[in-house]
Amino acid sequence: MDKLEQKFQVEFTFNVYFTHHLFAIDNPLFREAIPPFQGSNPPSFLFVIDEGFLHHHPNLVQQIRGYFAAHDAKMTLAGAPIIVEGGENAKNETKWIDNILSKVNQMKIDRHSYIVAIGGGAVLDMAGFAAAMAHRGVRLIRVPTTVLSQNDSGVGVKNGVNAFGKKNFLGTFEPPFAVINDLQFLTTLEDRDWRSGISEAIKVALIKDLDFFHEIEENVEAYNRRDLKAMTSLIKHCAKLHLDHIAGGDPFEKGSSRPLDFGHWAAHKLEQLTDYRIRHGEAVAIGIALDVTYSLLKGNISEENWSRILQLISGLGFDLYAPELHATTEDGTLQVLKGLEEFREHLGGELTIMLLEELGKGVEVHEMDHELIVESLNILERQHAKVTV
Amino acid sequence: MDKLEQKFQVEFTFNVYFTHHLFAIDNPLFREAIPPFQGSNPPSFLFVIDEGFLHHHPNLVQQIRGYFAAHDAKMTLAGAPIIVEGGENAKNETKWIDNILSKVNQMKIDRHSYIVAIGGGAVLDMAGFAAAMAHRGVRLIRVPTTVLSQNDSGVGVKNGVNAFGKKNFLGTFEPPFAVINDLQFLTTLEDRDWRSGISEAIKVALIKDLDFFHEIEENVEAYNRRDLKAMTSLIKHCAKLHLDHIAGGDPFEKGSSRPLDFGHWAAHKLEQLTDYRIRHGEAVAIGIALDVTYSLLKGNISEENWSRILQLISGLGFDLYAPELHATTEDGTLQVLKGLEEFREHLGGELTIMLLEELGKGVEVHEMDHELIVESLNILERQHAKVTV
Repeated sequence: MDKLEQKFQVEFTFNVYFTHHLFAIDNPLFREAIPPFQGSNPPSFLFVIDEGFLHHHPNLVQQIRGYFAAHDAKMTLAGAPIIVEGGENAKNETKWIDNILSKVNQMKIDRHSYIVAIGGGAVLDMAGFAAAMAHRGVRLIRVPTTVLSQNDSGVGVKNGVNAFGKKNFLGTFEPPFAVINDLQFLTTLEDRDWRSGISEAIKVALIKDLDFFHEIEENVEAYNRRDLKAMTSLIKHCAKLHLDHIAGGDPFEKGSSRPLDFGHWAAHKLEQLTDYRIRHGEAVAIGIALDVTYSLLKGNISEENWSRILQLISGLGFDLYAPELHATTEDGTLQVLKGLEEFREHLGGELTIMLLEELGKGVEVHEMDHELIVESLNILERQHAKVTV
Repeated sequence: MDKLEQKFQVEFTFNVYFTHHLFAIDNPLFREAIPPFQGSNPPSFLFVIDEGFLHHHPNLVQQIRGYFAAHDAKMTLAGAPIIVEGGENAKNETKWIDNILSKVNQMKIDRHSYIVAIGGGAVLDMAGFAAAMAHRGVRLIRVPTTVLSQNDSGVGVKNGVNAFGKKNFLGTFEPPFAVINDLQFLTTLEDRDWRSGISEAIKVALIKDLDFFHEIEENVEAYNRRDLKAMTSLIKHCAKLHLDHIAGGDPFEKGSSRPLDFGHWAAHKLEQLTDYRIRHGEAVAIGIALDVTYSLLKGNISEENWSRILQLISGLGFDLYAPELHATTEDGTLQVLKGLEEFREHLGGELTIMLLEELGKGVEVHEMDHELIVESLNILERQHAKVTV
């Protein structure tokens, strides 16, 4: 056959930093995370900030201005920050992306300039997608402000927005330039957002790290009284497990396997079915409860371990069930079952779902029994009623 | 410092095939280029076809249908092909991308499905960008139909569209799944498109391969009488040089160097200044003439070699100059000089321009003398007048 073969490797590196009071004048981290520039002018930084976060940190923009003024030989602020709506709406409406791209053009942000996205996972996903597209990739610094984004999505290599009513229909794989987690930012989270990211830690502990599962179990009370030290430990441990998994696996998901999405097939659908009333982390907690119950019915885990996991989830204040799980289409099919096909469709190829082989160890399966899913849902509904009574 | 370090490598591989009569039933190439599928259904293929090309190949869609019908155990056609406008308009209007994404959604094209783009470089760039975004990356098979796209852009790792009046303002780096060059497709090209891709071969020969430069010189007459064998040799040689350069260099252009863009800083601006009346390859021929003349004035190449290169370019039927090169802004500045800054801005960092150190060898510089550029333009204008008289 008459052909030329192309083959090359690309190395990707970035650091995930942990700090407190990121934009305090005397905190050297941000400045030191930026490499010396080439050329005649210091690089430009365009900030994109989550409106909800800004509400709790009204002095943030002034602090950033002060920080840049103090380091103006090394870096330049490109105009006023772009303030965007937080939460899933950031990913549902195209105007936020359009606005960022327009500013990239006006402010002459180039491929050696930086977009700094400060906010929850949705804002980071959306701003990251804009950064990945502009000039085929402007440098992105993620500053995640929620537990969920600090321990999970913020340290990953994906970005995206929703389209055609489908979550992350558009996006790319694009490692960030750096991730900076300011743990102090977590203190102003409302309880729901403080809690919801813990579900991703439970997820990765259940499939990969029994010791970590024990750590989470032992600290339920500490998390519930918002102990920042306990949470910091959880976030670092969880972020490390995610980073290692990505580096050791299939970073750009060329195959059909997505082990880090344990509990996620139902979660994605549930978010959509509730119009995002249920937040991602909360939906993942329910999705884990569902897949753990399914694993029980399959005989993969003991009733004792099943009960332990559900107790952990509800002990943290998560719901185990939402009525939308029983919503049906016109022909009587459970809506949530469509989530299985959408999950397969997004990645393509064969359906691949992660379940539990035992506590601390995942196993991939390529089909799920619809009757057992229904039975699992019924069990969860009863369990939920029991807990909430 | 409190940090986690992420580091991983991703390997990218794809083949560039050469064939004749790609969709003839008895041509096994397309079928064999597709790996066996996993799961229960053969993968779907969504075709995006350049309207201008289809005009010259009115039976193409029928041929594709026949080919897929003959191989329906291995691959499935996803609906009717999407016909898009060819040329730069494909990259200037968002409706083409929107249409592709909407079909990806309707036809349930997933990450293991294929988008097959058939057309010139602009259509491949636009369809490739849509494929890269959808589900964070649907497999893309490029079927370039012009000399330019077969020997240059079609074998590369970029895609993109224009925005804010700037060429390739949006796009990503995303290697294709495969590239299939059907040399027979070239026979229906109009003379301009047959010729224009030769400039990219001259470009890469001048900076990398003296023997190839001689091959091109010796075959001017053969190219001019549209000898397919001579052109096939040029395309393969040029594609190979491009592939090797990408694999051996900085595939995703993280640095500021873009050696394969010799002659391109002025070319991009000229395309825009002429509202794309001058096609990319034609603009590159002029851009090469300009940078070669500048290299002469800098004393890097001899007058004999300068004259030889210009003779080759005009011997192939290319213009050496366009009046828009002398267009000025309101304040009297030459518009084309803005191309230098836009070129720097796109890649970011330091301005880096490839010039000639000698025939067959490039050298990078970080500034250009505006007066020498003006002098080069004047020389080209006179040279052009001399040739066309």
